[in-house]
Amino acid sequence: MENINLTMLTDFYEVTMANGYLQEGLQNKVAYFDMFFRKVPDDGGFAIMAGVEQLILYLKNISFNEEDIEYLRSKNMFCEEFMEYLKSFRFSCDVWAVPEGTPIFPNEPVITVRGPVIEAQFVETMVLLTINHQSLIATKANRIVRAADGRAVMEFGSRRAQGYDGAIYGARAAYIGGCVGTACTISDKKFGVPVMGTMAHSWVQMFQSELEAFKAYARTYPDGCTLLVDTYNVLKSGVPNAIRAFREELLPRGFRPKGIRIDSGDIAYLSKEARRMLDEAGFEDCRIVASNALDEFIIRDILIQGAKVDIFGVGERLITSKSEPVFGGVYKLAAVEENGEVTPKIKLSENVGKITNPGFKAVWRFFDKVTGKAIADVLTRNEEIIDENKPYELFDPEYTWKRKTITGFRVQRLLMQIFDKGCCVYESPDLNYIREYCREQIDTLWDEVKRFENPHNYYVDMSKPLWDMKAGLLQEYK
Amino acid sequence: MENINLTMLTDFYEVTMANGYLQEGLQNKVAYFDMFFRKVPDDGGFAIMAGVEQLILYLKNISFNEEDIEYLRSKNMFCEEFMEYLKSFRFSCDVWAVPEGTPIFPNEPVITVRGPVIEAQFVETMVLLTINHQSLIATKANRIVRAADGRAVMEFGSRRAQGYDGAIYGARAAYIGGCVGTACTISDKKFGVPVMGTMAHSWVQMFQSELEAFKAYARTYPDGCTLLVDTYNVLKSGVPNAIRAFREELLPRGFRPKGIRIDSGDIAYLSKEARRMLDEAGFEDCRIVASNALDEFIIRDILIQGAKVDIFGVGERLITSKSEPVFGGVYKLAAVEENGEVTPKIKLSENVGKITNPGFKAVWRFFDKVTGKAIADVLTRNEEIIDENKPYELFDPEYTWKRKTITGFRVQRLLMQIFDKGCCVYESPDLNYIREYCREQIDTLWDEVKRFENPHNYYVDMSKPLWDMKAGLLQEYK
Repeated sequence: MENINLTMLTDFYEVTMANGYLQEGLQNKVAYFDMFFRKVPDDGGFAIMAGVEQLILYLKNISFNEEDIEYLRSKNMFCEEFMEYLKSFRFSCDVWAVPEGTPIFPNEPVITVRGPVIEAQFVETMVLLTINHQSLIATKANRIVRAADGRAVMEFGSRRAQGYDGAIYGARAAYIGGCVGTACTISDKKFGVPVMGTMAHSWVQMFQSELEAFKAYARTYPDGCTLLVDTYNVLKSGVPNAIRAFREELLPRGFRPKGIRIDSGDIAYLSKEARRMLDEAGFEDCRIVASNALDEFIIRDILIQGAKVDIFGVGERLITSKSEPVFGGVYKLAAVEENGEVTPKIKLSENVGKITNPGFKAVWRFFDKVTGKAIADVLTRNEEIIDENKPYELFDPEYTWKRKTITGFRVQRLLMQIFDKGCCVYESPDLNYIREYCREQIDTLWDEVKRFENPHNYYVDMSKPLWDMKAGLLQEYK
Repeated sequence: MENINLTMLTDFYEVTMANGYLQEGLQNKVAYFDMFFRKVPDDGGFAIMAGVEQLILYLKNISFNEEDIEYLRSKNMFCEEFMEYLKSFRFSCDVWAVPEGTPIFPNEPVITVRGPVIEAQFVETMVLLTINHQSLIATKANRIVRAADGRAVMEFGSRRAQGYDGAIYGARAAYIGGCVGTACTISDKKFGVPVMGTMAHSWVQMFQSELEAFKAYARTYPDGCTLLVDTYNVLKSGVPNAIRAFREELLPRGFRPKGIRIDSGDIAYLSKEARRMLDEAGFEDCRIVASNALDEFIIRDILIQGAKVDIFGVGERLITSKSEPVFGGVYKLAAVEENGEVTPKIKLSENVGKITNPGFKAVWRFFDKVTGKAIADVLTRNEEIIDENKPYELFDPEYTWKRKTITGFRVQRLLMQIFDKGCCVYESPDLNYIREYCREQIDTLWDEVKRFENPHNYYVDMSKPLWDMKAGLLQEYK
């Protein structure tokens, strides 16, 4: 992506609107847009923010080249003034983002863009595409990692990803979400996601016998030898041959086996039997890797049944977030500046849940000072300050009689400025830092929020001034 | 993609196996691999082949640069001979593919690769990733197009795609599957997929009133004016304001309106009411576009209820194939050459459905000469010839007593050679040709195969010589 200009990866209406704003003389009108989402995939209790590093790369590189302009001119829809405008297009907005790895919740801004409406509108498609994709995969990966309950989870899904970037950035996002590594080589090379992989069934088929295939592999990779044992029959042939190959090729060279992999059949049963056979052969340290259409539900289930699996390889159901493959982030106008004043804007809808939160906003996360746990997020008007030394009254924006006054908290602003008038003012942290930060932040959530079934609804509340502003706008439109 | 080298987008085990084959002296052993799939997504009756053009680009460009080799060397796992091998790596395989746009069925090879095992194995990840993704989206798009029953379907999903290529190639595949166009600008620029788009809700919010927003848009785009009418209230505000804008800005300029778009609420009800209001205002030619979480089932349902929709805009449920986001193509060793002889290989499995079809195979499609309809596909050993002038006995490879002798057929080989010893010998057809070919080929399928619920299982049979070979191998392994 570093070398590709993705400026033209945009919904065409961003271009028609841009030309329209120019023709209407609105090009310098300052607008505020928020990206937020309405529902956590898989009915989970939280999502994980990811993709900010790639969004930054995109925003740094927006520009229309001659070819782009020729292409647009060929549509015979746009005025020449607009073509000139695009030639000298330079992104000049302010942008705020929730840092990657942060748990995020419905209806709070995770990206805010402020600037000339043409620019702030134009980036919509790529803001959404970038953050929606990686947040989807980081969130799904974390569910699977939590189900594995301390065991390692590897991302294995490139071949079933939805396109090349689906594989490449999917592996990055899965690592943020807690996977220990990937099978996708380019994601290691580009981002340092630890890569792993040993053999396919075809390796075993290429030799005269399974034993010969295993022995050849053990000779080639005595250090870190993991053998795939299900090409013919796991318990009758695969495991016995693996044990023999370990004994004949590894031990004499002074190496211990790393593992075996089971890729079909009943993982719970086969892993228990294989474990017993390996232990009896003196290979208690040989790990068992399981793959084959796994997800958080199957992993949880087979662990309850006592499966002896040390590492889970998870493919298609992770890399596509199969059970819910869409992260529904939206990008909505929240305010415009008129004569230097910020005028909030609201979008109504027949569906109450689709009414937007107006104005230029801040997002605050409240943590309990004693437990360190996250209590609630509160949206405020951007200019509000929350004083940690005073009690703060939380109230439910929908059921306003539900109130609770809290003390002994610390607060953190979630939105960090990443662009200032078009200049990047934020350095993306190292990927390992993001992954560790993600783990720590998830630790601040109560177990009730992390449950798979009917998780507790984490509070995303509104300050009194913001609520009043929204109520006023709703009143106006009635 | 033209400019990016995706050689390193590969599962790491392809690399470990390659180094292993070299160390075992197997690098020149010739192997045959088949890509096939086992199940049509959404329990449909057929899938659509797509992605061959991008696969060709990848295969033409495989090469390891200095940086790749440095990266691999840093793993301390590979021998220097292998590093040298990679430096001069040149893809030299023969490749066959089913042309894009062709209806394809489970268990038949859609790609066959023949060549030195290192190379033929190495391309596995990208063969699968490329064909799985585009075939998934083409297949889903075609379901939605069939549900729309002659009305136009637009692909609208870039913002919810799984990564950039998910959007770009997804739009290409959706067009092959029958969509009339896309909102994704770059897919028009790169592939000529017709691009369309008008305005977002934010356009309406940027003006003092909905009417002013509509009038401004109508002034800017008098030719091809489609207005989004659901920002405030479709029937009380949106449609009346649209009618007024059409009257005040278009008619005086000599233009007719193109359409209105409804993006929320009950599409069946709103479209009928909007149609009535537009007709009463004399805009019988103004089309109604509907969007908002549509798929084939919702479209079929609201059409049954008499929805007056002319164009469907379909987003996330198409671009991710939401109801089933994985196309499960696999890549399996089918044969090796030993002393110039082709020795078939089979992969067994505890799951009977996962046993592979061995040998170097051809796929033949039988068409009835009178109706033009497809009767069955038959896999044969590659050297077999089917004589259209002789009766041919079809039999079910699983229930071999189910037999049927057919006459009056013509046959077509489905696999076309696309690479000959590493040289591309196939020119990808124009995208519009592929889309039209797809439409024609789907017309050769009986309606029973095209049904959404419980479609008829199209026959994919085996010739007697191939069946005998497979039965023999199974016998050998018992």
